[in-house]
Amino acid sequence: MSSTDRQSLKPLVYLTRIEKFCSAHRLNSRALDVQTNSQTYGKCNAVHGHNYTAEITLKGTVDAITGMVLDIAVLNEIIAQTVMKSLDHKNIDEDVPYFRDNDIVSTAENISVYIWKVIAERLPPNVTLDSIKLHETDKNVFVFRGEYA
Amino acid sequence: MSSTDRQSLKPLVYLTRIEKFCSAHRLNSRALDVQTNSQTYGKCNAVHGHNYTAEITLKGTVDAITGMVLDIAVLNEIIAQTVMKSLDHKNIDEDVPYFRDNDIVSTAENISVYIWKVIAERLPPNVTLDSIKLHETDKNVFVFRGEYA
Amino acid sequence: MSSTDRQSLKPLVYLTRIEKFCSAHRLNSRALDVQTNSQTYGKCNAVHGHNYTAEITLKGTVDAITGMVLDIAVLNEIIAQTVMKSLDHKNIDEDVPYFRDNDIVSTAENISVYIWKVIAERLPPNVTLDSIKLHETDKNVFVFRGEYA
Amino acid sequence: MSSTDRQSLKPLVYLTRIEKFCSAHRLNSRALDVQTNSQTYGKCNAVHGHNYTAEITLKGTVDAITGMVLDIAVLNEIIAQTVMKSLDHKNIDEDVPYFRDNDIVSTAENISVYIWKVIAERLPPNVTLDSIKLHETDKNVFVFRGEYA
Amino acid sequence: MSSTDRQSLKPLVYLTRIEKFCSAHRLNSRALDVQTNSQTYGKCNAVHGHNYTAEITLKGTVDAITGMVLDIAVLNEIIAQTVMKSLDHKNIDEDVPYFRDNDIVSTAENISVYIWKVIAERLPPNVTLDSIKLHETDKNVFVFRGEYA
Amino acid sequence: MSSTDRQSLKPLVYLTRIEKFCSAHRLNSRALDVQTNSQTYGKCNAVHGHNYTAEITLKGTVDAITGMVLDIAVLNEIIAQTVMKSLDHKNIDEDVPYFRDNDIVSTAENISVYIWKVIAERLPPNVTLDSIKLHETDKNVFVFRGEYA
Repeated sequence: MSSTDRQSLKPLVYLTRIEKFCSAHRLNSRALDVQTNSQTYGKCNAVHGHNYTAEITLKGTVDAITGMVLDIAVLNEIIAQTVMKSLDHKNIDEDVPYFRDNDIVSTAENISVYIWKVIAERLPPNVTLDSIKLHETDKNVFVFRGEYA
Repeated sequence: MSSTDRQSLKPLVYLTRIEKFCSAHRLNSRALDVQTNSQTYGKCNAVHGHNYTAEITLKGTVDAITGMVLDIAVLNEIIAQTVMKSLDHKNIDEDVPYFRDNDIVSTAENISVYIWKVIAERLPPNVTLDSIKLHETDKNVFVFRGEYA
Repeated sequence: MSSTDRQSLKPLVYLTRIEKFCSAHRLNSRALDVQTNSQTYGKCNAVHGHNYTAEITLKGTVDAITGMVLDIAVLNEIIAQTVMKSLDHKNIDEDVPYFRDNDIVSTAENISVYIWKVIAERLPPNVTLDSIKLHETDKNVFVFRGEYA
Repeated sequence: MSSTDRQSLKPLVYLTRIEKFCSAHRLNSRALDVQTNSQTYGKCNAVHGHNYTAEITLKGTVDAITGMVLDIAVLNEIIAQTVMKSLDHKNIDEDVPYFRDNDIVSTAENISVYIWKVIAERLPPNVTLDSIKLHETDKNVFVFRGEYA
Repeated sequence: MSSTDRQSLKPLVYLTRIEKFCSAHRLNSRALDVQTNSQTYGKCNAVHGHNYTAEITLKGTVDAITGMVLDIAVLNEIIAQTVMKSLDHKNIDEDVPYFRDNDIVSTAENISVYIWKVIAERLPPNVTLDSIKLHETDKNVFVFRGEYA
Repeated sequence: MSSTDRQSLKPLVYLTRIEKFCSAHRLNSRALDVQTNSQTYGKCNAVHGHNYTAEITLKGTVDAITGMVLDIAVLNEIIAQTVMKSLDHKNIDEDVPYFRDNDIVSTAENISVYIWKVIAERLPPNVTLDSIKLHETDKNVFVFRGEYA
């Protein structure tokens, strides 16, 4: 890219907002019997809970006048209306229709995919969802980038 | 204290072990009606959960030969057999007899007092329990020092 | 204290709420000349800013029915109306009357005392202010406990 | 790649140095009127400040003898002479010519691009700048990878 | 990819496990003389130590029934038998054959490559090693993604 | 204390500076035989290392003009000349005369006492050393307040 081209382009920046939510859940699949559930999920087969930390990353070009990819208040409102409203201070398995009605086990992998879906469908057109990073504990972290294989 | 006296004494050191446990709970008192519970506890009246961080602090003199207040493996085993065994990956309100059978609301205040009680009764004689510090979230922290008023 | 006495008493618990605010300031005393200000405060004599972290700690007895020292929503509202309203996203030296009108240098020591004063006068009667802990950076931390000497 | 090829190549490692700086700024565009600035930037339109955390990531191959991508003291000196010297304990809008003289709003997006530019032009030839990650607060994080669109 | 295709595919998720180990080491190359070692490595030429934090990231598709990429207990056991067993509470230069017997300097770059190698050869077939991120201190972080150049 | 008295007094503030140092050590007492050392100290009997975090807390009154307890640059210089110079990037058992020459085991308890001693004897007269808090790992923390028993 020539220096001239670069000046007519805008920098592409990744913007991350980090929010925490406090939820109860258990890992238990209706497709498995009691013993297999216990073997598969160990202590996570019992009802317990977490302070989840979600890192929601968008990418977009920096507006030449405002200097912003997106007004972060817009992203906050989207996260509040989707992630926080449905997951914070809830029992994920019983209170969130996506998990309860579809027999989806509330693993961190599946919660990451859920967050991707509810955020992606509400984003304004000039930004793209890049990744969802979910810390279930300080030691277990999960990332979904919208990829399927 | 004279310099001579000080040399015959041993340094008093406070030793803290930090452990995390993942539990579900809700704040709900059987002494209150549904509406009052909802008003008193807000969103915490619903079943949810936390990664709790407990800081358990002992005090004792430093052994002149080993240089230790207490072998930390001893403290770890006490915490494992009490705090971790009863609270980690549990629903506090349903799985812990202290809360379930005595109608004690599982506030962080009461969990701190519970941890004090189960640790204090198992400590070896040469150390004293100093405090229990419980982080319910990154923003809400509680300390119990065994004081009553 | 006998076991009987203890049962009629209530546990005393320290409750800490942690909030962050983002402010600009400079260290500069009108009682000192330009050169002395520069020597006294070094690089902090220039206008700069911080993400301050304030730990506000109350103490009180645990209510036998609710299990709480204080509804944390009450404390949050007090912090919002005092600390956050006056300091967050402000230039402390120009926007906060306590510092501006009294020629008080906005050191972390003085900000800690300021936070103590605005919180203490609004607390409900059943709790006591224990300490203000202010992190100016990750390496510089200040505590005020309402003591004078 | 065959095992033989791999042995003749060197591992490519990403090296990150993390530094913090304390600055004042406000979000205000000279291209917008007072009311639009207030609507666009909200509370950030007032002078305030942050402890910024910058993660500067280089990539390069590991030297077979020293085992290093780059002597980290070299990177530290580059960061000190560029990022720290121009931004730490400064009012970005008034003290940094890049922002002041070009009417560039000091958003975290634009600060990330600025850090990229000042670091990239001083790197030794055997390493490449990979990304600038800037934490404005614990909840708002920005990454620039030198991409334009 | 059509919506139909996507439904027949499974989400690809990156799973990270974070572990810490406490090791002694020094940076010193047998290929360099005493003076050059001192100049190259500075204070790191002396025996010292770190609490290293390793982030081990795998990628794989989410199992439709269990909702997991991999039972994290399996990954934990692999990390325990490789990383923790060989590095934790060890002097890397003297106790780890990879470094001691091959004259490999125990830089964070080389430790990252070592961790990649010992983890990669023991992973189950349905997951892939994505990256090793090694924090030597809070300010110095290294990533190896299995790339050679 | 009357309001009049309070105005003639100055606020007492606790000032903490947090520094990190990277050291090697092992726990081994010359007063114990090989087997007892192994039993007493477990894995810590082998040479390993840590990123230690030291929190050094002073107390003093806030100067009415400068607004400071102590110029933090003075405290930094004291820490640099004592704690950092003797412990950072060192093997504590071999490089620090206090431990090496007096057969003092380099437990975190004893390192806390050592830091207290080297800091206390160099403080200016208007401040008092309050405590040394030493984090050996994220889970093991030690405090010495100058008390003996």
